[in-house]
Amino acid sequence: MTPAELERAERVDSVLPALRAAAEQADVTATFPAAHVALLRDAGLLGLVVPEKFGGLGGTLRDLAAATYAMGTACPSTALAYFFHNTSASRGLLPLEAIDAGLFDDAEIPVVRAFAEKVLTRMGEGVWLANFASESVKTSGANITIATTARKVDGGWILNGEKSFGCATGVADYYLTSARLEGHETAEGLATFFVPRDAAGVSTRAPWDGLGMRATANNGIRLADVFVPDDEALGVPGAFTKMLTMSRGSFVGNQLAIAAVYTGCAQRVYDEILTATTTKRFADTGEPIASSPVHQLLFGEMTRSLHTAYLWLRYQLAIETAEVPVKSKQEVFAQWRLGKGAVTEACFQVALGALKAGGTSAASMHGVTGRALRDLAMGLVMTFPAERGMLEVARIVTEARANDLFATAPAEAAR
Amino acid sequence: MTPAELERAERVDSVLPALRAAAEQADVTATFPAAHVALLRDAGLLGLVVPEKFGGLGGTLRDLAAATYAMGTACPSTALAYFFHNTSASRGLLPLEAIDAGLFDDAEIPVVRAFAEKVLTRMGEGVWLANFASESVKTSGANITIATTARKVDGGWILNGEKSFGCATGVADYYLTSARLEGHETAEGLATFFVPRDAAGVSTRAPWDGLGMRATANNGIRLADVFVPDDEALGVPGAFTKMLTMSRGSFVGNQLAIAAVYTGCAQRVYDEILTATTTKRFADTGEPIASSPVHQLLFGEMTRSLHTAYLWLRYQLAIETAEVPVKSKQEVFAQWRLGKGAVTEACFQVALGALKAGGTSAASMHGVTGRALRDLAMGLVMTFPAERGMLEVARIVTEARANDLFATAPAEAAR
Amino acid sequence: MTPAELERAERVDSVLPALRAAAEQADVTATFPAAHVALLRDAGLLGLVVPEKFGGLGGTLRDLAAATYAMGTACPSTALAYFFHNTSASRGLLPLEAIDAGLFDDAEIPVVRAFAEKVLTRMGEGVWLANFASESVKTSGANITIATTARKVDGGWILNGEKSFGCATGVADYYLTSARLEGHETAEGLATFFVPRDAAGVSTRAPWDGLGMRATANNGIRLADVFVPDDEALGVPGAFTKMLTMSRGSFVGNQLAIAAVYTGCAQRVYDEILTATTTKRFADTGEPIASSPVHQLLFGEMTRSLHTAYLWLRYQLAIETAEVPVKSKQEVFAQWRLGKGAVTEACFQVALGALKAGGTSAASMHGVTGRALRDLAMGLVMTFPAERGMLEVARIVTEARANDLFATAPAEAAR
Amino acid sequence: MTPAELERAERVDSVLPALRAAAEQADVTATFPAAHVALLRDAGLLGLVVPEKFGGLGGTLRDLAAATYAMGTACPSTALAYFFHNTSASRGLLPLEAIDAGLFDDAEIPVVRAFAEKVLTRMGEGVWLANFASESVKTSGANITIATTARKVDGGWILNGEKSFGCATGVADYYLTSARLEGHETAEGLATFFVPRDAAGVSTRAPWDGLGMRATANNGIRLADVFVPDDEALGVPGAFTKMLTMSRGSFVGNQLAIAAVYTGCAQRVYDEILTATTTKRFADTGEPIASSPVHQLLFGEMTRSLHTAYLWLRYQLAIETAEVPVKSKQEVFAQWRLGKGAVTEACFQVALGALKAGGTSAASMHGVTGRALRDLAMGLVMTFPAERGMLEVARIVTEARANDLFATAPAEAAR
Repeated sequence: MTPAELERAERVDSVLPALRAAAEQADVTATFPAAHVALLRDAGLLGLVVPEKFGGLGGTLRDLAAATYAMGTACPSTALAYFFHNTSASRGLLPLEAIDAGLFDDAEIPVVRAFAEKVLTRMGEGVWLANFASESVKTSGANITIATTARKVDGGWILNGEKSFGCATGVADYYLTSARLEGHETAEGLATFFVPRDAAGVSTRAPWDGLGMRATANNGIRLADVFVPDDEALGVPGAFTKMLTMSRGSFVGNQLAIAAVYTGCAQRVYDEILTATTTKRFADTGEPIASSPVHQLLFGEMTRSLHTAYLWLRYQLAIETAEVPVKSKQEVFAQWRLGKGAVTEACFQVALGALKAGGTSAASMHGVTGRALRDLAMGLVMTFPAERGMLEVARIVTEARANDLFATAPAEAAR
Repeated sequence: MTPAELERAERVDSVLPALRAAAEQADVTATFPAAHVALLRDAGLLGLVVPEKFGGLGGTLRDLAAATYAMGTACPSTALAYFFHNTSASRGLLPLEAIDAGLFDDAEIPVVRAFAEKVLTRMGEGVWLANFASESVKTSGANITIATTARKVDGGWILNGEKSFGCATGVADYYLTSARLEGHETAEGLATFFVPRDAAGVSTRAPWDGLGMRATANNGIRLADVFVPDDEALGVPGAFTKMLTMSRGSFVGNQLAIAAVYTGCAQRVYDEILTATTTKRFADTGEPIASSPVHQLLFGEMTRSLHTAYLWLRYQLAIETAEVPVKSKQEVFAQWRLGKGAVTEACFQVALGALKAGGTSAASMHGVTGRALRDLAMGLVMTFPAERGMLEVARIVTEARANDLFATAPAEAAR
Repeated sequence: MTPAELERAERVDSVLPALRAAAEQADVTATFPAAHVALLRDAGLLGLVVPEKFGGLGGTLRDLAAATYAMGTACPSTALAYFFHNTSASRGLLPLEAIDAGLFDDAEIPVVRAFAEKVLTRMGEGVWLANFASESVKTSGANITIATTARKVDGGWILNGEKSFGCATGVADYYLTSARLEGHETAEGLATFFVPRDAAGVSTRAPWDGLGMRATANNGIRLADVFVPDDEALGVPGAFTKMLTMSRGSFVGNQLAIAAVYTGCAQRVYDEILTATTTKRFADTGEPIASSPVHQLLFGEMTRSLHTAYLWLRYQLAIETAEVPVKSKQEVFAQWRLGKGAVTEACFQVALGALKAGGTSAASMHGVTGRALRDLAMGLVMTFPAERGMLEVARIVTEARANDLFATAPAEAAR
Repeated sequence: MTPAELERAERVDSVLPALRAAAEQADVTATFPAAHVALLRDAGLLGLVVPEKFGGLGGTLRDLAAATYAMGTACPSTALAYFFHNTSASRGLLPLEAIDAGLFDDAEIPVVRAFAEKVLTRMGEGVWLANFASESVKTSGANITIATTARKVDGGWILNGEKSFGCATGVADYYLTSARLEGHETAEGLATFFVPRDAAGVSTRAPWDGLGMRATANNGIRLADVFVPDDEALGVPGAFTKMLTMSRGSFVGNQLAIAAVYTGCAQRVYDEILTATTTKRFADTGEPIASSPVHQLLFGEMTRSLHTAYLWLRYQLAIETAEVPVKSKQEVFAQWRLGKGAVTEACFQVALGALKAGGTSAASMHGVTGRALRDLAMGLVMTFPAERGMLEVARIVTEARANDLFATAPAEAAR
């Protein structure tokens, strides 16, 4: 770690005790602890990955993953909500990169730049920006389908729709909201809007009673004729897709920092159960519970699973942050399709092992083990399950090879 | 099914709607629905496996497994608590078999018979008998270690100790309680007592906040100088171990009916998610969600897991109920050591598959999927985890073979 | 077992020593031991499942599975080749059942009956009938695609094509051969022919150098203008598909007896390694090798796998032989799609466990462990891999449910 | 890669075509291709990891792993035999490091240095040094037990014993042989000897008929009163154990380069089956075989397995070659106990997937798929199975934690 990274890591460490102390009750009540916003803001962490010139700490994806991992050991819900705030930075950084790459014309550049810098400046100032993209409509070909619409009116836009998930509902200062511009049918028409938490027409959906990650305030919102002024929107057609081409992985990047949340959570439950079963001893032999053959088997499997999670996570981080890219964007994407599933399945196996190692008496709803099991179960379904990623990669490798072979045929025929 | 079995099955069916209706709230509040006692009693089901001459319905283990399976599809917690009530019948049936087998002497027979018949008669009359054996002390060699003591006094016994688990705490009419007679150090000294729910000196432990199976009233009790009169106790030394020799499987038998609870629960969540994903359709193609490649994979795996659970369960039932035993007690025991783990792991995989098939929106704390995942997670740890059963069987097969080989050596040498 | 079954089982037992003695060399040379034909014929076993009135022993699928299992413990290759001979009986039994079921008209009946009885009579007399269906063309929708053609000429048929696999090539007296009648494009046009081993135009393909099951003489044949007279053919259009409707499982039924071969092989390697590791002892402690923690884990897993194979096999046999069918043909089919994969994967795991338990020194090409690993690897790919069966079942359950729901919609709408 | 690494890699590439061309026949005849010795020598590769001052190419573990990986794609047997030659370099490098670390006294240094430099100089000159350590005696606590003895006589040593395995039997110029000095009972007494291939008293054991890795000439030798002069021996007591303390991983280090052999083999079979199934097409739809749902599933799993192997291998390489060690020797050791199993199991899964993807027609003894399956099966048992490594790590983590807790107790009590 560089000195700057160390300094940023210390800021993260400073908030962990408070996160850890609030975790249990936050899970019980399924409530994001309101005080955490000020806590993180005061530590400067809302600007963790914002360049210093916009008032941030100048961290990279390495900092973000380290932060969400560390917070994952203390309160996975907070770590997750914090992740989504940070990923908002992409809505500023990627458009700026796209401008530098010459993807926008002269007329578009000032508009795009202004919006991008607004995103970053707000984050640098300590504004919490939630990311609202998920909707409940499903189509066979896409992970996310946007049905929310934006209609142009004088001086701004009128938004209508429903966002089914999104951390920090009712907590964030703004919801950074995706919507489809009326008259567009493709991703070219996707636009991004700052929707103030308390704007007229915004309502909160029913409380989300999740199996795990319960304290993320993940209710989602409804938008009924919500007006957003022009300068709070990025309505340039194509801006969204141009921005996506700049990310190094899938979507807006950074996804691996979610996997870091789960890995932190898995490390925590592993540590707890290891301490518990090496401390508690058999009444007859005086040996630690952990020394029994079944515990040895369980700890062997848990340790292997934990190492597995770290391996996938560490490698994904390496290929997404290498100064000179060592893998193509397509390869980084495919690696993540496997990696997301590999990390979350491995972490869940750690929780299952801990459940078994703890026995019936540890099998409670709350406490570290019960909570980790539920939090890590969420990891299995978030974004996409391991099985989906695996099948996507199968299609990528087989179609690439089929195309390779096809592509060479004419060349050979031309000899 | 025989006509008598059908009649008994109809009694079970009659209570399912009420069980199903109360299940969700029972889980939320972690409370056994008090009305279920009368419901089951009025349906005659508290005497399901009690011979007709003691006022019961005359059912066998087949009936019990069918009942707990069916209840498992409606409310697994109730099914589990009901199972433990029924297994109390073994405390009546097995001693009577042991008398017939000549295991008791003339002086003991009247005492043993009186107690055994009291157990059965009470159950036949609709008295709920909870089974309290589990304690929190662990020893390296035994599944359960009994530290509760019974001291002889004039006209009865004084009990002291703590029972860490036991369904129907505060619900059952009596706690059928195991304790060690003072002056004995081995299982020969284990005795059984009727402890009335409200007896002086009985207190309920703190509410048990389980991850799943939350509505089983599994708190456990403390016994502080509780007096039990002689005729409410089976204090004959050796009675407990003699009784155990009569069971066809492990412990007091019937354990597979617990696995039936989990299998019912797994079938329910499978049905729900199959209906949900074949009803809901993709917005673009109109095809059911279930037709996607990832859902096909998930349903393939879930179906295989469900069949796996049925196979182990069905076979265990066959070998424990065959009129002419086809397997030795040792083989039945070993089969169960594998079978318990196989059924519960398979059922849990069904719940995991359902979680993934349902996606983020189905990943809630409550509802069929979230509840099944938590209830079935309890199955993984109850009694013993799959890994423990597997290692025990390994020891059985390798030691048996090593002994076989050793035993033949002298014979060969003598030629 | 009934007395008749016991008598047939004794015939099987009588050939096992010879099979076991020849197995190793047969594998080394990849040659079906020629003497086994007379051995099995003399024991009457070529007519095992042929009704007594046609000269057979009158056995059922229970006998066949028991026989192939027992032979599987001695020489899996012979067991497999023997299985395919026996399955030829379906070409006689199923058409006779189809006649009884009224599926043929009066003109067809004599032709169908004559052919069917010829199949059975020949088998009853001790003629070895190989079954040749597999071809190398693959289509996306079918397991087997028949490209071999039969052209009508005066007094018979001219066959042309290639059969890629088929046990007992160059060994069987006749190849019972499937071909498509010219002018037909569907399965209605499939016909069956007796092709004598040495008929003009029949040639043997290059030796098949299989990974396992090497002594099955599985080369396959080429047919170049092979003439088959009318009375050695069943050329009635539709006879093939009508016959298939009579089987209780998939295709012509009996497939589970292949799984029994693999299970026998798995039991054998399990027994061998158990004996080896309980006999050999550590030089320092004197304890059997099998007592080490890693061996305990391996034996636990092997034992579980072996039990798993038996469970699926036993249940499939039960539902395919129940006097009163307990499952629909569709259910029997679906069960087998899962069961075939479950049995063969479990058996292969036993071989892998034995390989690991035996260590480097047992990891040889030949000997029981090396042979079992290779023979059981063939089980993974024969007919279809586990993954294919699982995905087929997924389609069956999801489409059935989707259709159910669809079917009820109009009814509800009509209220 | 550095320019020097590239130059060394080109040397490796230059020999691959010859290795690939000879692989099939080498497997059939179970013979190490004699011409490969000169091939590798002429390419300078016998000195790959020998410092330039001793005449070698100056490569590191990175070069070695890259070389064995590349050779693994061509001929795994050759790669493995080549690995063992290279690992002999540790017998020179580690003692020199131990001298620098001050582990030997002044009297010992010249003897140790002379032997060490002789090992390296010979390798640099192109002498093939086989490593012979394995014996057939097993003890419960150790991976390898040395029973071969060395008795001091005038001018040298007399060796007696048997080495059960060892690549390049009858091929290597010298067998670098471990033996126990008479009068010593612990590892302190282990000594190393140059035994010329054709020395009097050396005989080759019966041909080793391995399941896979058949062309490694792995027969092993017998030593009957073999005389080795003093200057061809390192008989300083304690030299062996002092040397071991210098390695960065387990034993003499470098073990991960074996895992690289398997990974190369897995990559090869993956490429072959991917090409085969994307080239061959369904006769009806014209789509590649690889596009079928079952192939998609198989390729998804194979790709994940292959990535898994790379992750463990790459990370092990990183921690064993980091200029500034990032992990303690204990951690490197534990990582390898998991990693060896993880890599070899993953590679074997690739071969199994290829077997299934290829179908019955690809399931032959020879050819890339059949060979890879057998070669990779050897990986499962070589050195130790995955299960053993996993249980060892469980013991390490639980005992370390138990000791930690114990160690802190007094400190806390002293406050």
